[in-house]
Amino acid sequence: MLRIGFDIGGTNIAAGAVDEGNRIVARRNEPFPKGKPYQEAVALVESMTKELVLAAGGTVKDLASIGIAIPGNIHKPTGTIIGAHNLKFYDVPFKAAVGERFPATPVFLINDANAATLAEFHMGALRGCRTGVLLTLGTGVGGGLVLCGEIFNGGLGHGVELGHMCIDMEGPLCTCGNKGCVETLCSATWLKEQGLKAFGEDPHGAIGKGARGRGEAVDAKVVIDAARAGDPRAKSIFEQYTEHLSSALASYAVLLDPEVMALGGGVSHAGEFLLEPLREKVKQKSFFHYPHKLVPAKLGNDAGIIGAVLLK
Amino acid sequence: MLRIGFDIGGTNIAAGAVDEGNRIVARRNEPFPKGKPYQEAVALVESMTKELVLAAGGTVKDLASIGIAIPGNIHKPTGTIIGAHNLKFYDVPFKAAVGERFPATPVFLINDANAATLAEFHMGALRGCRTGVLLTLGTGVGGGLVLCGEIFNGGLGHGVELGHMCIDMEGPLCTCGNKGCVETLCSATWLKEQGLKAFGEDPHGAIGKGARGRGEAVDAKVVIDAARAGDPRAKSIFEQYTEHLSSALASYAVLLDPEVMALGGGVSHAGEFLLEPLREKVKQKSFFHYPHKLVPAKLGNDAGIIGAVLLK
Repeated sequence: MLRIGFDIGGTNIAAGAVDEGNRIVARRNEPFPKGKPYQEAVALVESMTKELVLAAGGTVKDLASIGIAIPGNIHKPTGTIIGAHNLKFYDVPFKAAVGERFPATPVFLINDANAATLAEFHMGALRGCRTGVLLTLGTGVGGGLVLCGEIFNGGLGHGVELGHMCIDMEGPLCTCGNKGCVETLCSATWLKEQGLKAFGEDPHGAIGKGARGRGEAVDAKVVIDAARAGDPRAKSIFEQYTEHLSSALASYAVLLDPEVMALGGGVSHAGEFLLEPLREKVKQKSFFHYPHKLVPAKLGNDAGIIGAVLLK
Repeated sequence: MLRIGFDIGGTNIAAGAVDEGNRIVARRNEPFPKGKPYQEAVALVESMTKELVLAAGGTVKDLASIGIAIPGNIHKPTGTIIGAHNLKFYDVPFKAAVGERFPATPVFLINDANAATLAEFHMGALRGCRTGVLLTLGTGVGGGLVLCGEIFNGGLGHGVELGHMCIDMEGPLCTCGNKGCVETLCSATWLKEQGLKAFGEDPHGAIGKGARGRGEAVDAKVVIDAARAGDPRAKSIFEQYTEHLSSALASYAVLLDPEVMALGGGVSHAGEFLLEPLREKVKQKSFFHYPHKLVPAKLGNDAGIIGAVLLK
C-alpha cells in the first residue's frame, strides 16, 4: 500500500512516499511556486507524485492515496481551499484539480496543523490519549487538539487556532488583528526579533561567549544556544520566552486538563533546556498545580507528510 | 419522579424539589454553616430534603434522587469532595454521609459549574449543541464546556477552569497564583472594585446621573446601570470590561470554534447592553472573524439545582 504525502508550505513543498508501516521510503522537495497560479502547484504535485512512485519501486496503479497538508482552511465536502494566506490560495478547488491528474486515486486535503496532530496522535507523542494538545513553535505558532479520542477540527469545522489565543490583551499586534496572541509572543520569530534587538543585525556583532560563533545571522536557534551557553542577554530573552509560553500552556491546561501537551516546531529542538523550566512554570501558573505532562513532539518535520497519508 | 437538587455555595444553600418536567415545584434556602464541621451541612441537606419532599406532596419513598452541586473538585468514584475552597471542605466523604441519611435514594455530587452547564445543555442556551461554552460572570468566573456532545470534565477528570485562563500575563494576581486570569478581569468583583475606585466608598458619594440612586453601595450592577444611563466614568469602566471579556471569549472561540457561547451569572443580566458590544469585539479579535453566536444563559440561578437533578 503505497501512499504519497505532501506538506505544502509557503516556501517549500515537501513530499514523501510512505509504506505500510508509515515509514517515508522516498522524499522529494521543490520550492513552492510563489505568486504563480495554483495550477503550477498542482503540476508539481503531479510530477513529484510520479517521481516518488517510481522511486518507491511502484507504479501509479499501486497508489492507494495522495494526501496533501496545506496551511489553510479547507471546505471538506468539496476539497476546496477556502483560504491559505501563505500560499495566497483563496477558493481554490485543489482536490479536484489533483484528482483530475490521478482519476483512479483518492485524494485528501488536510490542514497542516491537523495533519501534524493526526501523525502525533497515531504514532507520536499524543498516541493513545483522548485529550491532547500539540503546539508547534515555528515562524508562527500552530497546533491541534485531540478531544474525545479524535482530532478536533473545531465545533463548526473552521479548525482550531492555538496560536491565536490571547495571553496579553495589551501585547503586540498580531497578523490576525488581535493583540498579544500566542503567535506574537511564543514564535521563533519573537526569539529572533529579541535576539536582533539585543545583538544587532551586524553580521560581525558579538553574540556572547558560547554562541555558535561570531558573524552568524541571529535567529531563534542562535539565541537559544547562547542562552544555553550562559550569555546573560540571551538567558534573559529565553527566560522571558518561557514566561510567555508557560502562560499559554497553563491556559490550555486549565481549559482542557489534557493528558499530554506536546511541543513541536523549530524551537522545540531546544529539548529539555526548554521543557524543564516550562514544566515548573506551567505547574505554578495552572489552577490545578499538578505536574502536567509536557513532552517533545516525535515526528519532527515529517509530521505533515505522515499525517496527510493517514487520511482515509 | 421527584428529585431534590441542591446548590451549595459558601454563603447559601439553595434547594429545590424538581418534577418530571424539570420544573422546580418547591424551594428552600438556608445559610451555609460557615466554619462548622461538614456534618452540619449534611444535616441541613437532610432536613431540607425532607421539607421539600413534604412541600412537593410526596414522601421520602417517592424520592428518585438527590443531586448536590458544590463549588469544588469531586472524586467521582467515591463521591468525596477533594477540595471546595469556599466551603472549606477538603477530603470530605459528602456523598456517603448524605447516603447514610437516605439509604434507599441515589445521591449524586457534581461540580456547580458542570451542573450549570449540564442544565443549559439539557434545556437552556446550549441545548442541542455538540461544542458549547458556558461562562458565568459572578463574584468569580466559572463555566463549563460541552465537547463532542457531552459535558466535558477535563481530560484527566479535574474539570475545566474557564475563569483561570490567562488574558494578561502581567495582569493582577489571581487567587490561583497566576496573573491576569479571566476571573481577575471579567468578574463582577472587578466591576465593583473599579466602581469603588471611581465613585468612592462614601455611601453619599455621587454615582452619576441615572444611577439607581445616591447613597447606594457600589457593586457591579450599580456600575452597569450608571454606564447604561450615560455616566462617563461608568461607561469607561464598562468599555474596559467588555475589552477584557471579549479577549477571553475570542480565545475560547479560536480554541474551540464553538457553536454557541452562553453568558450566565450576575453580570450577564446586563443583557444586550453587554452582549451587543461583545459580539462586535469578539468578531474583531477572533482569528475566524465570523459572527460567533453569543447568547445569555437561560436558567439563571436555578441552573445549579436543575443540573444537579439531571444526574443519573
